[in-house]
Amino acid sequence: MDLRPLRPFAWALVLLLFIPASLVVDLVYGPGVPVFAAAGLGIVPLAWFMGLATEEIGKHAGPGIGGLLNATFGNATELIIALFALAGGLQDVVKASLSGSIIGNLLLVLGLSMLAGGLRHKSQSFSREASGIHTTMLLVAVIGLVMPALYVFSARATGAVNTLVLDEMSLGIAAILFAAYVFGLLFSLRTHRDIFNPVSEKEEKPRWSLRAALLVLLVSTVLVAGESELPVGSLEATRASLGLTNLFLGVVVVAIVGNAAEHGSAVLMAVRNKMDLSIAVAMTSTTQIALFVAPVLVFASLFTAQVMTLDFELFELLSVALATAVLASVVSDGRSNWYEGVLLVMVYAVIGVAFYFHP
Amino acid sequence: MDLRPLRPFAWALVLLLFIPASLVVDLVYGPGVPVFAAAGLGIVPLAWFMGLATEEIGKHAGPGIGGLLNATFGNATELIIALFALAGGLQDVVKASLSGSIIGNLLLVLGLSMLAGGLRHKSQSFSREASGIHTTMLLVAVIGLVMPALYVFSARATGAVNTLVLDEMSLGIAAILFAAYVFGLLFSLRTHRDIFNPVSEKEEKPRWSLRAALLVLLVSTVLVAGESELPVGSLEATRASLGLTNLFLGVVVVAIVGNAAEHGSAVLMAVRNKMDLSIAVAMTSTTQIALFVAPVLVFASLFTAQVMTLDFELFELLSVALATAVLASVVSDGRSNWYEGVLLVMVYAVIGVAFYFHP
Amino acid sequence: MDLRPLRPFAWALVLLLFIPASLVVDLVYGPGVPVFAAAGLGIVPLAWFMGLATEEIGKHAGPGIGGLLNATFGNATELIIALFALAGGLQDVVKASLSGSIIGNLLLVLGLSMLAGGLRHKSQSFSREASGIHTTMLLVAVIGLVMPALYVFSARATGAVNTLVLDEMSLGIAAILFAAYVFGLLFSLRTHRDIFNPVSEKEEKPRWSLRAALLVLLVSTVLVAGESELPVGSLEATRASLGLTNLFLGVVVVAIVGNAAEHGSAVLMAVRNKMDLSIAVAMTSTTQIALFVAPVLVFASLFTAQVMTLDFELFELLSVALATAVLASVVSDGRSNWYEGVLLVMVYAVIGVAFYFHP
Repeated sequence: MDLRPLRPFAWALVLLLFIPASLVVDLVYGPGVPVFAAAGLGIVPLAWFMGLATEEIGKHAGPGIGGLLNATFGNATELIIALFALAGGLQDVVKASLSGSIIGNLLLVLGLSMLAGGLRHKSQSFSREASGIHTTMLLVAVIGLVMPALYVFSARATGAVNTLVLDEMSLGIAAILFAAYVFGLLFSLRTHRDIFNPVSEKEEKPRWSLRAALLVLLVSTVLVAGESELPVGSLEATRASLGLTNLFLGVVVVAIVGNAAEHGSAVLMAVRNKMDLSIAVAMTSTTQIALFVAPVLVFASLFTAQVMTLDFELFELLSVALATAVLASVVSDGRSNWYEGVLLVMVYAVIGVAFYFHP
Repeated sequence: MDLRPLRPFAWALVLLLFIPASLVVDLVYGPGVPVFAAAGLGIVPLAWFMGLATEEIGKHAGPGIGGLLNATFGNATELIIALFALAGGLQDVVKASLSGSIIGNLLLVLGLSMLAGGLRHKSQSFSREASGIHTTMLLVAVIGLVMPALYVFSARATGAVNTLVLDEMSLGIAAILFAAYVFGLLFSLRTHRDIFNPVSEKEEKPRWSLRAALLVLLVSTVLVAGESELPVGSLEATRASLGLTNLFLGVVVVAIVGNAAEHGSAVLMAVRNKMDLSIAVAMTSTTQIALFVAPVLVFASLFTAQVMTLDFELFELLSVALATAVLASVVSDGRSNWYEGVLLVMVYAVIGVAFYFHP
Repeated sequence: MDLRPLRPFAWALVLLLFIPASLVVDLVYGPGVPVFAAAGLGIVPLAWFMGLATEEIGKHAGPGIGGLLNATFGNATELIIALFALAGGLQDVVKASLSGSIIGNLLLVLGLSMLAGGLRHKSQSFSREASGIHTTMLLVAVIGLVMPALYVFSARATGAVNTLVLDEMSLGIAAILFAAYVFGLLFSLRTHRDIFNPVSEKEEKPRWSLRAALLVLLVSTVLVAGESELPVGSLEATRASLGLTNLFLGVVVVAIVGNAAEHGSAVLMAVRNKMDLSIAVAMTSTTQIALFVAPVLVFASLFTAQVMTLDFELFELLSVALATAVLASVVSDGRSNWYEGVLLVMVYAVIGVAFYFHP
């Protein structure tokens, strides 16, 4: 592996020292604000490296595949953590982290990307076709989540909820969403690979080999996954004293810390005016969570005491649906600017305020 | 009538023999699986002939008018059947068949068309302007259905539903939707006929005369209407034993069998890369049901014991609304591909699963 | 001030005589149909002058700034009236007038503009980018209104609504919406002023000076504000005898009379084929009400006995949300025609019928 391209990033390499530091602080002082700060600083260079690696992969294989690999690596850790939580019976936390991740990617990652990119570039353009298909995929997922919630709502109005029916409905819908995801891979990697990986006019020469980029992405992802556990642990320790709900924590913290990979990569790409890659990272990650991670968790829950059903809280469901609607409105013209980024962040703030007060 | 153009379709003419066969089987053995199979096979060539006739009309008068005639013929039979059901007091079945027809046209007919067309052609384009206006018309209809449902919801929360108020509201809204339809005809046939009937670059020579095409369309439609009664009767006979709800039956069976005309024509046109005609068939049929058939049924119900109100079940209403939303997302760019077709079919599957388990 | 350009408008100057006439009638006969008629006739020339002034300002500074000034002047009077109503404890009336104003601008003002303009011009085009950003701003406002309503809905289902929580949530969301508005001004007046003020190909020479136009706009606005109080007062006097609800009155009367400024200007501009200015007037007014007037009223209510919370009635909230959806569908292609105008007006009619019967 050729490390020379990393030389200009001495500052990042220095910040990496916060990774061992955060571990030491955690062991010596236990969870708390110092761990949170150290781990947060340690994640910064990792997210940066993930962004660089994604950019290099994008140069080799196109923004669609770069975004897919970034999303897959980033979501793999989320999936593993969720599987452990599922085994521990924490279904509500898992669900909250799923919706939090979707909302965070759509509103915060994309919003900050458009804002950061828009502060440098007056107007940025990206493939309407690719973002349109991602939007439709998200809508399909939203419809898949509406139906079980509607069943619970109707059943409660007329009597008791039949949990067996809810389990079967969730499994059926999970199977359909999973199929939609598999067909989507076939579409974006095979039959219509060119939509998601347009040849840019000024073909850039990759600075890293594809193998090096993949290795950097993999190692950074694993380190981010481990490192992001520390602040989550620290927050959990102080949650009760701050009086925050599990839902707020799951939705907000996961959206910010849990999506560090997407944040780093998408914002970096937007600043460099590579909006196709930036949007591919954020939207591929979102559709992957909705159409792949969520169904896989439903299937995996068959091996636990209780099936993870797809009926989300009305608050979460509406937040995901409204985030999808505002995103569709923002990306529909294939152009972005700083104010559209601000509006996405504002919607995130509104949802954050609502979740904070949620009973 | 010149039958020579029908010669290459010997296979279809042979399949037509299943029509008398299905009648014989029905008379001898009574309703059951054999009738269902024979009638199903008999509908195939009829739908095919409807498609051919629609294509020829389209060559004579443009895709907008071809689609309108196909939709009108197809929906005429649905309207007649619904009027009889209304006279028999089966309002819930009529409503379920209306929403089933809308959902079926938007998701299944359009989805299978885009899928079938997309398997042959990498990307297919159609008029954004025409599909955009159809989408807005559907949205208007959805809003017309939301208001009575909302009234019932609010009234139930605070006390009893005033059926007189609900009747008057339904009649008022039906009148508005009907007016929107009439203005729409004026728009699409008079002032902006060119939007819906663009002159294609390579003008095709019609193979049939307009009169012959109309006759084939008429005869096929009548036969399909009669023939589709057989499987519906058969299903009804076995419904109880299979434990299916009326809602599921109405929504799913009507969506598939009752829209045979639209299925045949739209899919055939998509495969032949005439997406403007394919989309005109499916969307004109849907807007006609929402803005013409439904209001006419409300008015007709004034002559029965009870007004057919426009308050649909929440499940049906949300399904229609979400189908409209996902359709809007798919057609917004004026292009389609096989995966967008798959996504529409997947949404249909999700709704089907939900209706199957509906309490 | 040069009054010569007003000469061709002798008819309007004559109609202005109805303004003193309406005052006299009101003093002599008291509220009733004569006052209503006289005041209505007096508003017509005022709305006309506002339209002319807005057009002239648009020639000087572009449609975005013309629309903003028209909206600001028009909404200033609404804000003042609302502040008085708030001080009098009439929170429900204030809220109804806010949603009525939004619905009226989106559906009636824009609908009549597109209809009137479309009767003269087959197809009219406008900036997709500007209308797209306004649509997204409206969506953000809708999301801001959904969250408090959802809190009330959830809290009622599980127990009692915590009014303190609702107050804080409303204040938090109002602050976010206000911030979104301020950033929007920065965007539309500074960084991306060209999006909202495109240089038209055939640059028209202003006939009035900017100062004269501003003065005409100011004086007309003040007169309209005073004059529109008369019919509102008359209606209130006869409301009980007609059996209309406060909600219906607030929503419908405000939408028609209270938006006289927007009606006059937007319709006049559409007829003159200046759709950018027409849409700027209607949409700027709407976003200003949702993101500026509403938050300011929430803040102002801190000085009254009770905080004005942002939880609107489900009927109002859904009407605003659906109006936004249908508007998004209509403006998404950057073109309009008479039928799209009819459809917007039809949606307004559907909502009007629903509000009329609202329990």
